[in-house]
Amino acid sequence: MSIELQCPVPHFNHETIQMAHGAGGVLSRELTRKVFLPCFGNSSLDTLDDQAKLSIGAGKIAFTTDTFVVSPIFFPGGTIGDLAVSGTVNDLAVGGAIPLYLSAGFVLEEGFPLTDLQKVVSSMADAADKAGVQIVTGDTKVVEKGQCDGIFINTSGIGVIKNGIDISCTNLKPGDSIIVSGTLGDHGMAVMAARKGLSFQSDIISDTRSLSALISEILDEVPEVHAMRDPTRGGLAATLNELAEASRKGIVLDESTLPVRPDVQGASELLGIDPLNVANEGKVVVAVPRESAEKVLRVMQRHAYPSAGDAAIIGEVVDEHPGMVIVRTFLGSKRILEMPLGEQLPRIC
Amino acid sequence: MSIELQCPVPHFNHETIQMAHGAGGVLSRELTRKVFLPCFGNSSLDTLDDQAKLSIGAGKIAFTTDTFVVSPIFFPGGTIGDLAVSGTVNDLAVGGAIPLYLSAGFVLEEGFPLTDLQKVVSSMADAADKAGVQIVTGDTKVVEKGQCDGIFINTSGIGVIKNGIDISCTNLKPGDSIIVSGTLGDHGMAVMAARKGLSFQSDIISDTRSLSALISEILDEVPEVHAMRDPTRGGLAATLNELAEASRKGIVLDESTLPVRPDVQGASELLGIDPLNVANEGKVVVAVPRESAEKVLRVMQRHAYPSAGDAAIIGEVVDEHPGMVIVRTFLGSKRILEMPLGEQLPRIC
Repeated sequence: MSIELQCPVPHFNHETIQMAHGAGGVLSRELTRKVFLPCFGNSSLDTLDDQAKLSIGAGKIAFTTDTFVVSPIFFPGGTIGDLAVSGTVNDLAVGGAIPLYLSAGFVLEEGFPLTDLQKVVSSMADAADKAGVQIVTGDTKVVEKGQCDGIFINTSGIGVIKNGIDISCTNLKPGDSIIVSGTLGDHGMAVMAARKGLSFQSDIISDTRSLSALISEILDEVPEVHAMRDPTRGGLAATLNELAEASRKGIVLDESTLPVRPDVQGASELLGIDPLNVANEGKVVVAVPRESAEKVLRVMQRHAYPSAGDAAIIGEVVDEHPGMVIVRTFLGSKRILEMPLGEQLPRIC
Repeated sequence: MSIELQCPVPHFNHETIQMAHGAGGVLSRELTRKVFLPCFGNSSLDTLDDQAKLSIGAGKIAFTTDTFVVSPIFFPGGTIGDLAVSGTVNDLAVGGAIPLYLSAGFVLEEGFPLTDLQKVVSSMADAADKAGVQIVTGDTKVVEKGQCDGIFINTSGIGVIKNGIDISCTNLKPGDSIIVSGTLGDHGMAVMAARKGLSFQSDIISDTRSLSALISEILDEVPEVHAMRDPTRGGLAATLNELAEASRKGIVLDESTLPVRPDVQGASELLGIDPLNVANEGKVVVAVPRESAEKVLRVMQRHAYPSAGDAAIIGEVVDEHPGMVIVRTFLGSKRILEMPLGEQLPRIC
């Protein structure tokens, strides 16, 4: 292969926050590494998993946080409310935890309609019910008109990790199959389609949903799973790059196996965006020893969620080119699937 | 007494969010009762304590969340960063928990200076060190210029509750003494003084600090404490009204014992604000059987924090006028200390 084995990270020297610092790509990683880790660094945070794994008494819990600033707050297939619940539930579930308790922290803009708040809160309650979690503590702040964009919601969550489960983004092993649980890019494209000023319309619906039941069943039947992550901000490209880098392994994808809806593909081309960089909010990427891959697929396929039938083995973990993700294209050539640099779709979650 | 025994709550019929919905007073309570509890209600949330108490495995943990939107973000005695850490640490500590782990969720405005972010993050790390907690998981979102005011920080936290500790705002008993750990209103007035456009200047410094060590020592020496709360938004007035209402007991305060710095008193008069409605970020209110009150005071007084020498027994819990707080004034008359209605000092935490 003629591709360099080291993925050089360009040096950024911004003096102010850029939109790309929140996009889940290279600049997000830089901010984490240069500002947050040097100050906060500890063994739990340093893994950069989506959740911290903590020993409390004899047990082990997972703890995670996420703030949601999606615009618009109502979009096909979801609201900022069920997104906030499912997103945090999923960050616990992909750590191998059973999600139990959520907090809800609201920042509201003066003048925000109470009927909209009611709708958002109802959708949170529904999502919590479906995911089997309780919202047990909360906080509300109000800022002056013009000082925030309607509503921002932070949800933090706690789950219990079953004995014997050891899932982390540092755990990829050569020979692992990479599986994705359905079509890619649906959430991001649904939000984009709902955004004012966009010229395309479509039936694309966000995949926002809790992965808790699905993942729990996967782990019951296939406890040998090595790593899981939900490909949210930055899409599949960011998630696989994070896994490859954290595990110091390479990943090779087969482009022909990547499940993308034709309308998502079309909208992506219209916008000049790679659907592999687009956020998902109800999909999971699983790395599992090759011999167990079909078992994982069968669990996914028998679940009745939309696009479960599109779940697919999309690639494998290799010893070569550690930290890099390579795609074998339709044409038989190879290209690097890079960590997204910055902000293609701002405020998507 | 000529005061009515029932405190009538005026009926509000707003169609949009008002600043007062975030002020920790009557409208905040209304929003919680009418919007959040009907949707999310469960036994943990319904107590309206500052933290949820949860059984996980054989142990009991406390879980809390708070978003910080203080303006300005740098003020005499603190930053939004140490405030965010201490505030959440304190919400765990007043539930009788030993704070252990925090999450940090940032919303940043495009264009926010990285040097300011660095300062904020450093102050969070220092505050976490002092409080003995680790920041173990985080999230960063960026919104477009003009869509948030610089930086908002959510911190959520987990602590372990020691066996045998049962502290709740529903636990007041007649005969309990009410103790406050130092001077009142310092934080709110320091933030006001730092705010542009205000005509008074002063040496008032925020009391932002972790109460964890102090409270832990109080509970070691005086495990019979019934209730504790940190009088933040809405100040002492909101806190005591919440305790009285949750416990269905009355509280009588002695105005002559209330510790208020002369410059805070002066600034309050200038602004037409009651210092008892002003936020504190490093004080605790304790309800404890009368015979143990002096012991609590001694623990406070031997701690070296500023204004520890001003810790005082300020009142007592009575069977009469349940849900109401009455102040015996300097002149010998009685007045109701009402739940603050709305927003005297917006964006104070």
